Amino acid sequence: MTDTVISSATREVVLGFDRPFVMIGERINPTGRKILAAEMAAGNFSRVEADVAAQLAAGAHMLDVNAGIPLADEPAILAKTVQLVQSLTDVPLSIDSSIVAALEAGLAVYKGKPLVNSVTGEEERLESVLPLVKKYGAAVVAISNDETGISEDPDVRFEVARKIVHRAADHGIPASDVVVDPLVMPIGAINQAGVQVFRLLGRLKNELKVNTTCGASNVSFGLPAREGISAVFLSMAIGAGMTSAIMNPLHEEIVKACMGADVMMGHDPDCARWIKRFRQAPPLAAGGGAAAPAEGAARGRREGGMRRRTQAPQ
Amino acid sequence: MTDTVISSATREVVLGFDRPFVMIGERINPTGRKILAAEMAAGNFSRVEADVAAQLAAGAHMLDVNAGIPLADEPAILAKTVQLVQSLTDVPLSIDSSIVAALEAGLAVYKGKPLVNSVTGEEERLESVLPLVKKYGAAVVAISNDETGISEDPDVRFEVARKIVHRAADHGIPASDVVVDPLVMPIGAINQAGVQVFRLLGRLKNELKVNTTCGASNVSFGLPAREGISAVFLSMAIGAGMTSAIMNPLHEEIVKACMGADVMMGHDPDCARWIKRFRQAPPLAAGGGAAAPAEGAARGRREGGMRRRTQAPQ
Repeated sequence: MTDTVISSATREVVLGFDRPFVMIGERINPTGRKILAAEMAAGNFSRVEADVAAQLAAGAHMLDVNAGIPLADEPAILAKTVQLVQSLTDVPLSIDSSIVAALEAGLAVYKGKPLVNSVTGEEERLESVLPLVKKYGAAVVAISNDETGISEDPDVRFEVARKIVHRAADHGIPASDVVVDPLVMPIGAINQAGVQVFRLLGRLKNELKVNTTCGASNVSFGLPAREGISAVFLSMAIGAGMTSAIMNPLHEEIVKACMGADVMMGHDPDCARWIKRFRQAPPLAAGGGAAAPAEGAARGRREGGMRRRTQAPQ
Repeated sequence: MTDTVISSATREVVLGFDRPFVMIGERINPTGRKILAAEMAAGNFSRVEADVAAQLAAGAHMLDVNAGIPLADEPAILAKTVQLVQSLTDVPLSIDSSIVAALEAGLAVYKGKPLVNSVTGEEERLESVLPLVKKYGAAVVAISNDETGISEDPDVRFEVARKIVHRAADHGIPASDVVVDPLVMPIGAINQAGVQVFRLLGRLKNELKVNTTCGASNVSFGLPAREGISAVFLSMAIGAGMTSAIMNPLHEEIVKACMGADVMMGHDPDCARWIKRFRQAPPLAAGGGAAAPAEGAARGRREGGMRRRTQAPQ
């Protein structure tokens, strides 16, 4: 199956259908974060440093880096941020901008093989971004919309993705270096957004045979308990074939959904990563005191024998 | 698509591919619950009454009723429990026993069209349970194992399911009244258990076109944070086509996974049920005090604008 290798100078991450899901931390992004935007524009990167540390501690395998600040010198700030982040960690990065000059500035200083985020099916974007991707030997996120916008028909989006993959090939970029973003719309606004994306993910895996990613937080926009929706979406999307996502790893509920999906897909041998992360008892609620562990144990016992057909593993 | 109607005297629940997922509460089951077993054997049903109330409050659409107590008069106790539960609620029941005489005793007193849990592909079970199902006009859970045991090959299990559906037809029971249990093994013991079941669920939906259920708690047996695994499994199984499960609705994490999956499948119009259940802020952790809502709001703001491609729904 298709492997997409992303790297820093010293570490590789591989996206693939037979591999653990790749969590790409979304936090280094000033969009909607006024304080961060102001600090980055002023050359203060302390919050970026904290975001790097927190996302790695939460389990992110890659980090997305975006410096989209209105009226600021985005190419310079993005390059500086990429260099800073690479001085702090060796996880590979996704270089994220809608401005081609900023992508190039980031690529020019990046050590390794990054993920360029992103190209669309729009003619002008294809012909400005793909040559850069080829020049720097990068991989690229291909968003499945074009000049006509975002179709609600997953088959139309599939054709846009196919067009981008073919155009990338024309530029000498293999399909294994194209990571398609099927585009996840807010489910609160478009109730069919989930089934659209699951269907599209299946076709991208089985027909186009490309790796996939998405901005996972979009799906839950405007809903209460939104991390719950994002978590369920991620589990189901992984089941449908999605191999990475740009997401918020600082929500335990969301990381748990991805790690649990790895278990269910058979991508966590002996559940070793799950057990390592979750084997400790959760923090006791205030007032739980000594009673809490006993309750937990009792619950485990009851559940273990709940269905008489259960055969307990030895 | 296939609809399976289960009813009490006054209420129907319908399993179907285009319908919300059906949560069948598993708690009324003395297996592994020594106190409950002793109480039920002694004619004390106060704990059953509490289990009914708690599961309904948690959102169960149906309740499974099992009276499997060693050395007790299971037919009499199951019949009594069925009558008691039906006096307390009008949600339809699943009558659960491995003893045919107990199934018949439960069926004889049941008001409505219950789900009989269960028949297997074993010759002796087929020929003893299916006539009962036909006699009482019930629906039946068909477990995909036979005399040879439980195959790890989903295609073998599919053939067992097909055999049961065909045999049911010989007895005059339509396929729409057969709900197949693909058998979910503990993922901690069999790492491929998830992909086996997802593949099987797809074939059961698309080829045999039957509704499905399972004992969902089995999957997480022996693992830490097991509700997390059960929750992820349920979301992914719903994505793969599962239409009901016998499960523990008392874990909020598990109910959330099912309700979130309904949202993602487009089976919760306008996310109305999700919003109704989760629109209120979660209980504050001790010590959170007045700071917690503000933190929550800030987090919501940041996430809303996190991905620059997000279009906020109006």
